[in-house]
Order: sequence, then structure tokens, then C-alpha cells
Amino acid sequence: VAATTSVEIDERMAAADAAFSTWSSWPPARRAGALDRVADALDQAAEELVATADAETALGEPRLRGELARTTGQLRLFGAVLREGNYVDAVITTADDATARPDIRRMLTPIGPVVVFAASNFPFAFSVLGGDTASALAAGCPVVVKAHEAHPQTSRRTWEIAQVALSAAGCPDGVLGIAFGFAAGAALVRHPLTRAAGFTGSQRGGRALFDVAAGRPDPIPFYGEFGSVNPVFVLPQAAREHTAQIAAGYVGSLTQGGGQFCTNPGLLFVPDEPALLSAIADAIAGVAATPMLSRGIHSAYLRGAEAMAGVDGVSVLARGVGGGDDRGGWMATPQANVVSVSSFAQHAGELAEECFGPAGLIVTYRDAAELGGVVDALAGNLTASIHAEGSDHELAGRLATPLARKVGRLIFNGWPTGVAVSWATHHGGPWPATSAAAHTSVGATAIARWLAPVAYQSWPDDLLPSALRRDNPLHLARRVDDTFPD
Amino acid sequence: VAATTSVEIDERMAAADAAFSTWSSWPPARRAGALDRVADALDQAAEELVATADAETALGEPRLRGELARTTGQLRLFGAVLREGNYVDAVITTADDATARPDIRRMLTPIGPVVVFAASNFPFAFSVLGGDTASALAAGCPVVVKAHEAHPQTSRRTWEIAQVALSAAGCPDGVLGIAFGFAAGAALVRHPLTRAAGFTGSQRGGRALFDVAAGRPDPIPFYGEFGSVNPVFVLPQAAREHTAQIAAGYVGSLTQGGGQFCTNPGLLFVPDEPALLSAIADAIAGVAATPMLSRGIHSAYLRGAEAMAGVDGVSVLARGVGGGDDRGGWMATPQANVVSVSSFAQHAGELAEECFGPAGLIVTYRDAAELGGVVDALAGNLTASIHAEGSDHELAGRLATPLARKVGRLIFNGWPTGVAVSWATHHGGPWPATSAAAHTSVGATAIARWLAPVAYQSWPDDLLPSALRRDNPLHLARRVDDTFPD
Repeated sequence: VAATTSVEIDERMAAADAAFSTWSSWPPARRAGALDRVADALDQAAEELVATADAETALGEPRLRGELARTTGQLRLFGAVLREGNYVDAVITTADDATARPDIRRMLTPIGPVVVFAASNFPFAFSVLGGDTASALAAGCPVVVKAHEAHPQTSRRTWEIAQVALSAAGCPDGVLGIAFGFAAGAALVRHPLTRAAGFTGSQRGGRALFDVAAGRPDPIPFYGEFGSVNPVFVLPQAAREHTAQIAAGYVGSLTQGGGQFCTNPGLLFVPDEPALLSAIADAIAGVAATPMLSRGIHSAYLRGAEAMAGVDGVSVLARGVGGGDDRGGWMATPQANVVSVSSFAQHAGELAEECFGPAGLIVTYRDAAELGGVVDALAGNLTASIHAEGSDHELAGRLATPLARKVGRLIFNGWPTGVAVSWATHHGGPWPATSAAAHTSVGATAIARWLAPVAYQSWPDDLLPSALRRDNPLHLARRVDDTFPD
Repeated sequence: VAATTSVEIDERMAAADAAFSTWSSWPPARRAGALDRVADALDQAAEELVATADAETALGEPRLRGELARTTGQLRLFGAVLREGNYVDAVITTADDATARPDIRRMLTPIGPVVVFAASNFPFAFSVLGGDTASALAAGCPVVVKAHEAHPQTSRRTWEIAQVALSAAGCPDGVLGIAFGFAAGAALVRHPLTRAAGFTGSQRGGRALFDVAAGRPDPIPFYGEFGSVNPVFVLPQAAREHTAQIAAGYVGSLTQGGGQFCTNPGLLFVPDEPALLSAIADAIAGVAATPMLSRGIHSAYLRGAEAMAGVDGVSVLARGVGGGDDRGGWMATPQANVVSVSSFAQHAGELAEECFGPAGLIVTYRDAAELGGVVDALAGNLTASIHAEGSDHELAGRLATPLARKVGRLIFNGWPTGVAVSWATHHGGPWPATSAAAHTSVGATAIARWLAPVAYQSWPDDLLPSALRRDNPLHLARRVDDTFPD
């Protein structure tokens, strides 16, 4: 697929801007109908799309089929969000003549055309019609997607199929645009018509684009999700009582999908006891190598795993089964390294960096009291998990308070991979996990990234948006003065 | 007051960070009690505080007394927000075994110590204990305030009085710090422990600090409010039927407080009809000069008003009464300039810039159809107002849609000055009005700037924050799955 030229980028953004007034003024339920049509069209083209993505990414049919279903499920979830309508967060202050307070009615409104960067590791769910695009379209914002180099044909076909469905739904041209080629990324973020950008990918690439967004004459929000090491704390009683279950759970989460999830448990803290370590070693040793997304990602994995094992005090605990059907040299062998908590503390800068792939670092502690200092030293992460049983609970509670400052999601007796798409989902976290800790890129409230409030003061009822009219025609749950909802 | 040294800035931020775990873990109602104590103490010290501020700013006792009442009212409003508790925006997704969906409970939590920049034009309401500080303390975030050079003694005394009240309420040391001197500003934003900053002031100063925040190794949110020209559109029938009322309302809003409000109506669009223009000229001519905040602001006003009048096609419509008791050369004479809409369009870059003070630009149009182009050319503003009567309504509706993209508040048959502090208040707008269009610096929801979500997955009830417990002990309005509230 040819790289999009700067003239074409101008055209795409102008078309998105031109589509904005129509698309944003459609009643939410009408936008929901268009999203449903796109979801249906993608489901109907599943055979072709999965085959195309499989040829480009080596993720394999079962995973890709599941991911496509997740993607169309997301589109339908945002349809449901629109039909319910409370995402506009309507708040009303009624007039009070005694204090000369005017009637004020506030709601969230779409901000204009936005840019979405597709991720390498999810050719459907974080790509052309992934969660960023679905939430932005739902919000009323036209989208130009920067397709990822790792799966251009999948991106192009997904876009074409969506275009047909959007046209059939009567959507204005320009509601969904696409651009290809590395250079298009910064150009889209820099474009004067762009009002915000969403990104899932590496910290290095994301930081460069963040700087472009912040350096504009008119800075725009940049919602970047950069992945993280997702620390897991196994507390002493849990380690003793659930040794086998924890070993199996850890290795499953670490190696799932070739370890190519941003919620991969890269850092595991366990008591320095042979039983759990040998159970983990045994579990790792039984896992076969899996193909990675691309040759480039595979090379980076080999470098990262080697660098980790080369740090002072780190040793290899176990490796998985090597070899396998190596399509193009993409096969990655799982690997678990081990280090003491004191050595970890000395090299935390290097060791708490994400190694994208199925390589984990296990940090052993002798005294659970050492974990407090570890938490304080952690940078921002998407998730943290605690495994606790009985007498561990008190420590779990003490660790949770400082951890809540460092992560977006806290998991109890579970593993970080597998991000449910729901109302309560928060897929985010402090820098460097994301560039906007107050926002999520997964789940219903991801729509908030593309909205900003507008307050109508003393505005006549017949000119108000439906969401704010006095008779509440959309039956929204609105705050009215101190009553919530009315 | 001596400038705060860099060593002292380190100490202030370290103290704020040390206070965070205690302050943020107090139940919201306990933080509310501390805010109430501070409000009471400031009210009790009103005589001294108003006298101190009057000596430093020349705003005059009546205005300062009113502003202090607004300030303590804000502290009590945030107390009420905390006692109600719904600001944590609790959202719950229950477990579903059929789809292997875990229980997820999300709420907003405080982000850590933050920095607040006091504004020149509100020595109480946007200063040491102003809305930014009140909302951040309410959120659970310790604050270090950068005091404004225009009123150091007022800042120092306000802080001392608040300190006594906070201590009496048992608050940890470091919950509220203060720093003086221009250089402290960038140092505070750059400090590793700072998690966000709030700012009200000039676009130039704000942009410089925004760049510091965005350029950090770990960028932090910078909530800057830079003021704007707040366009007002008087439509034809309204202009004819309410000539005197509109002239009086405009001049009152333009010259209120010496024109030193960020919602000052700097730009007025009116039909090119002599009746309204002469009514405005008459009204301006009767307004006496008023003292401005400081000599520096006064000089900038003279330069700005002169520059505006010097642009091609601009002429002076009327000036107010000059002279008066000129304390230190701070007296500003109101002035209205006039220009045709076509000349305005040619020089919109210069003419749509804020001139801080009681100088307005009146843009005359012959055909209301010309206003659509004007709206499209506008940059971001805090507010826009429309005056419409009868047959004007249809045009008002058509202008409102594009205006809603450009401003944070739309006012009908009213004037932008006077920002009610309420739940529905939105004091914000797209760049360059603010640096964070999705947020407000006034009103109950200003608290959201200092919060970020944390989701608890499969978390045991006894370790959950009260806001998320299964029995809902705080009686919050929570979304549970598709039901809102539960």
C-alpha cells in the first residue's frame, strides 16, 4: 500500500472536518445504527479479514477470529452507549432569582476530527475499526486512521468494508479516512484541523508524537497508551497454599499471545522459596515457542531478553521449548529470568522496562516488608496484581494504597492479561504507561476522550440540544442542582 | 516577601508529597470539615485581608469584600461536593461467569501533590485559597501555591490564616505550601513530585509553563486558563427592540471591575445602525475611569487600546470620563472602538486578541449572513453570547452549532461577566482560551482535574474503598452495569 502524501493528508483532514457538522449533529441513536452496520459488515467479511490478517501477522486464525469478534462487539457496545445517552453527562443548575443565579445546562459535545494510530499487536481491536475509532465515531468525531505498517492489507480491507457500510447508512463522506506510511503519523498530529489523537504503541514512538501534539501552536490532547510491565505481587501465604495454581496462571498470562499484550505480567514478585520457583520453571519449560507479530518485533524481543539476562544478579530460571515451525524467523521462546529484590532495586531503571514478548522477570524477596520500597520505586503501569490469602490480606491492603497511585487497575488473585470491555473498565495509568492518566482507551468511557463540555446559560428550550431540554426527552439521568439524577 | 529558593521549593514539594498519603486517605467528609474551618477563618479575618488586598491592588473594598465571600463560598461548595461524594464517579461492572467477565469497580482517586498559580486579577478567588486550591484540596491533593507578584502580602496572610485552620483541623503538615517569586513558577512545574498544575493568567506566561509541563521526562497535565475576547452577537431584531437595554448591558459588562475579567466582552457584533451605536457611545461616555490592578497592567492596557485603535479601519466610537483620583497612575478610561465586519475580517488576527481592561471592539455588520464567516474564523473562547428576539431565533440556532465548537459557555440575551459557581458551571474553552478544553476551573466539577480513575478487579470487599463496597455505605449514585444509578 502506497504511503499517503502530504496533499492527501490535507484532503483526508479536510474531508473529516467537512463531515463533522453532519456527523456530530446526528442524534446519538442514528450514529449507533451506523456503527452497528459497520459491525455487521465486518462480521460478514470475517473469513476474508482473518485470512488477510493471518498472512500479515502470524497471529493465527483462532486468535484473529476472537479479536475480530471483540472488535465488532466494541462497535456494538458504543452503539449501546449512544442509545442510552448518559455519556453526555448532562448537568443542570436551575435559575435562582434570590442570588441572581442564571439557568445553566451543561453537556459533553464532540471536539472535531481526530486521528487514531493503529497498533501493531491488534490488527483488528486496536486498528482501523478498533476501540479508539469506535469511541471517537460514537462521540461524533470523524476519524482519520494512521494504519500500522505491520498489517497494511488488513487495514485497507477493513477500511473499505467499513466505508461501504457507512455509505449505506447515509453517513457523510470523510467520516472515516485512512493514511499509510510512517511519515503520515506526525503530519496528521501536526495538521491544523486535527483536534486530538489516540495512540497505542511504543513509548518511544508515542513520546515523539506526544511532543508534536504539545508543540503545536494550538496544543491538542494526545491519548497515548504505551504498555507497561504490570507488576504482580505474590504474598507469602498465597505462594504456599496455591503454588501450582499461581505458577500455571503466571506462565499462562506471560506467554499468552506470544507475550504481546500491553498487560503482559513482565514483573513478578515472589517469596524466595524453591517450591514456587521450580513450579514456574517446570511450567515455562513446557511452553512451545510462538510466532511473534513481525520480524522486527522478534529481533527486539531477542535483544530485550538478552539484555535483561545480562544485568548483574539476573539469571535465567527457565526457557520454553525452542524451534517450531519458524515462519520467517519470528518464533519466540518463552523465558523467565530471576533476580533478588536487592539486586532488582539496584538496577530497577533497566529491569522495570518492558520487554515486549514472552520474557518475564521474577524478583524474589525474603521479607514481605521489602515490597513497600519496591512499590514506591515503581513508575506508572497499566495494572498491578496482588495474590493474597488469609494472613496476607493486611499486607495486601497496605500495598494497595500506594499502588493505586501508580496504576490504573488493581487485580486481586488474578492476572493482568485479558481486558474486559465494560462500563467500569479502566485501561490506563500514570506516565509512562499512558500520556493521559485520567482516560481509558478500552471500555465505554473511552468515549470521553473525544468530548468537551459546553454550558448553555439562559438558553431558550427550543434551541437547546435534546439532552438539556426541560422535559428531558431522551430520559437521561441528569444531575439537577443537588439532586442526582433527576 | 522574599523569593522562594530552589532548596525551599524542594522542601515544599517534599512536604506536600509526604502529606499526600494521609490527606488523600481521610474520608471525604473529614476533608470537608477542614475546608469549612479554613473558610470560617478567612471570613473571620475579612477586615484584615480586605484591607491588605486593597493596599496592594486598588480593587476597592466593596469588590474585595465580595470576592472574599465568593472565595469562602467556594471552599464550602467543595465541602458539600465531598459530603455528597458522587464526585468519585463510581462505576461497577459485576462478574459474569458465562463470559468469564470479572467484577470491576472503578472510582476517581487523587493524583498527588499539585501546583496552583495565583492570578493577578482575583487576589482571593483565584489566589492562595481560590478555586484551584479548593478543588485540589477537596480532591485529596496537597497544594503548593505560586503566589502572584501583584499581591504578596495578601497571599502570605491568606496562607498563614489557612495554615492555622488546617493545623487546628488536624491536617498533616505540607497540605498547603506557598512559594514566591517569578522563578519559582517553572521550578514548581518542573519538580519531579508535582503531578499537575493549575494556572490562571496570560496566554504568554501560560504557554511557557505549559511547555515546561509537556517537556518533562514525565509530562504532567497543565490546566491553564488564559482569558479570551468573549464575542457577543447582537442580532437585528434584538438590536432594534432592546437598544437601550443592550447598550447599558454591554457597557456595564465591559467596564465592570475595570474590565479586568477573563469573561470581559471584548468583541461585540452589532447591526450597522446608528441608534444602537449612539446609545453605546452615550453609555460609555458616562463611565468614569477606574483604577487597574497594577501599574504594569495599566501600561499594557494603554498600549493595547492604542494598538487596537491604530488598526486600519478602526475608529474610536467613544471614551469614558478620564482623570479621577489616580492612585499611582493606575486609572483606566473605558474606550469603545468600532470597525466594519469586512475590515475586522482582514485584521482578525490582531483584533481578536484580548486587550485586558475596559476597551471593547464593536464590529458592525450590514447583513446577518456575514456572521457565519466570523464564527468560523474565531479561535477558542471562554464564552460567546447571542442577543436574539423573535425572528432572530432561527439565526441564533444556526450560529449556536458552530459556536459550540469554539467556546465553553453559550449565553442567551445576557453578558459573559459574572461566572456562577455551581454544578453546571463550565469555565473553559478550546485553545487559546484554555490549555485543557475538557476541564473547568470554576464550579463543582473543577475537582475532576486532580483525579484519575483506578479500577479494582475481583477485589475483596473488606479491602475496597468505601465508595466501591457492595453495600454502598456512602449511598452514592453509582452505575452498576447498564443501570444508572443503582
